[in-house]
Amino acid sequence: MATNITWHPSLSRAERNSLRKQQGFTLWFTGLSASGKSTVATALEQHLLHLGLAAYRLDGDNVRFGLNKDLGFSDKDRTENIRRIGEVAKLFADSSTIALTSFISPFKADRELARTLHAAKAAGSTDEPIPFIEVYVEVPIEVAEQRDPKGLYKKARAGEIKEFTGISSPYEAPENPEITIRTAEKSVEECVVDIVAWLEAKGLIPASSK
Amino acid sequence: MATNITWHPSLSRAERNSLRKQQGFTLWFTGLSASGKSTVATALEQHLLHLGLAAYRLDGDNVRFGLNKDLGFSDKDRTENIRRIGEVAKLFADSSTIALTSFISPFKADRELARTLHAAKAAGSTDEPIPFIEVYVEVPIEVAEQRDPKGLYKKARAGEIKEFTGISSPYEAPENPEITIRTAEKSVEECVVDIVAWLEAKGLIPASSK
Repeated sequence: MATNITWHPSLSRAERNSLRKQQGFTLWFTGLSASGKSTVATALEQHLLHLGLAAYRLDGDNVRFGLNKDLGFSDKDRTENIRRIGEVAKLFADSSTIALTSFISPFKADRELARTLHAAKAAGSTDEPIPFIEVYVEVPIEVAEQRDPKGLYKKARAGEIKEFTGISSPYEAPENPEITIRTAEKSVEECVVDIVAWLEAKGLIPASSK
Repeated sequence: MATNITWHPSLSRAERNSLRKQQGFTLWFTGLSASGKSTVATALEQHLLHLGLAAYRLDGDNVRFGLNKDLGFSDKDRTENIRRIGEVAKLFADSSTIALTSFISPFKADRELARTLHAAKAAGSTDEPIPFIEVYVEVPIEVAEQRDPKGLYKKARAGEIKEFTGISSPYEAPENPEITIRTAEKSVEECVVDIVAWLEAKGLIPASSK
């Protein structure tokens, strides 16, 4: 076995993708609380895994209580929260894994920062930029507020939560998202199918057998 | 296709490992500058990829200039640097990827923090803790100083680098590392073989055909 080991000082992303038989990219879900971001992202993640692709979802549960547990909710900390998520998603995508992020990420500037990070190349690198795909989970706020699975809109209306996106803090909708899904009009299943079709059409994942 | 999509609110790590056909864990390399950490970790990463396993190495190149670019070299920032690397390695391992980290990480307390993070369970989780494997890359400092590929020891001796590990700042050697490799006595290839054999013996990767 030993004699078969050869290696290079470092792998290019193209070489890694070839060995991993897939390419990495980031699907950045953004939308109001209760828009369905996490539901759709979770379903999509599992669908991709069932297709034999490596995929991983970053969300509040595994980030806010770990990597970002030192951050609060000031403007500065919110921006740093999104910056770190962007950097970690980029690492996953660089590793040939499909990174999915599901955070409200209400501010255009923060999402643009995450996009810019993905476009940045390491010094001397010949790698292509990592694809960054913004997925706008669009839903009328009335629908989100009616769903309100965690009672957060109710608390926000009662003034118990300050700076709640859509109520007392703005949600800056994406102007040119790569993908828009409307969870008030389509089922979770249909949304997943639409995203998968988009990824296939772009050649980011292999075309599935019909 | 659509009708085949089913999903759960979230995946357990065991379910994810089953879909990914491998389990994640962290190999935490520690050792002096020029000990061979990155060389061995890079060779091992590529060997694992050639075995068909997902593996990814976190190092100064992809972390210091990205996620941790806001950190300097104060004691506080060095500890935060290692904490974040520990959290990100844990995310990769949680995603069923083998995470390799190659940082000097000279202080026991910092490495213990990274180990502790891996042992921590999310609230309500039934997942097993993520294996954390400390790999001590042991080399006499005289050998490391003679190698000095980047001329850092020379600069440290000349007083041009402050707090250089092994010269003007301590290296706290691991007391009970899971694996010790001695790069002054064995080739990179032999070190990789030894680590792979250890991982196979522990059942962390499938036994390779001999």
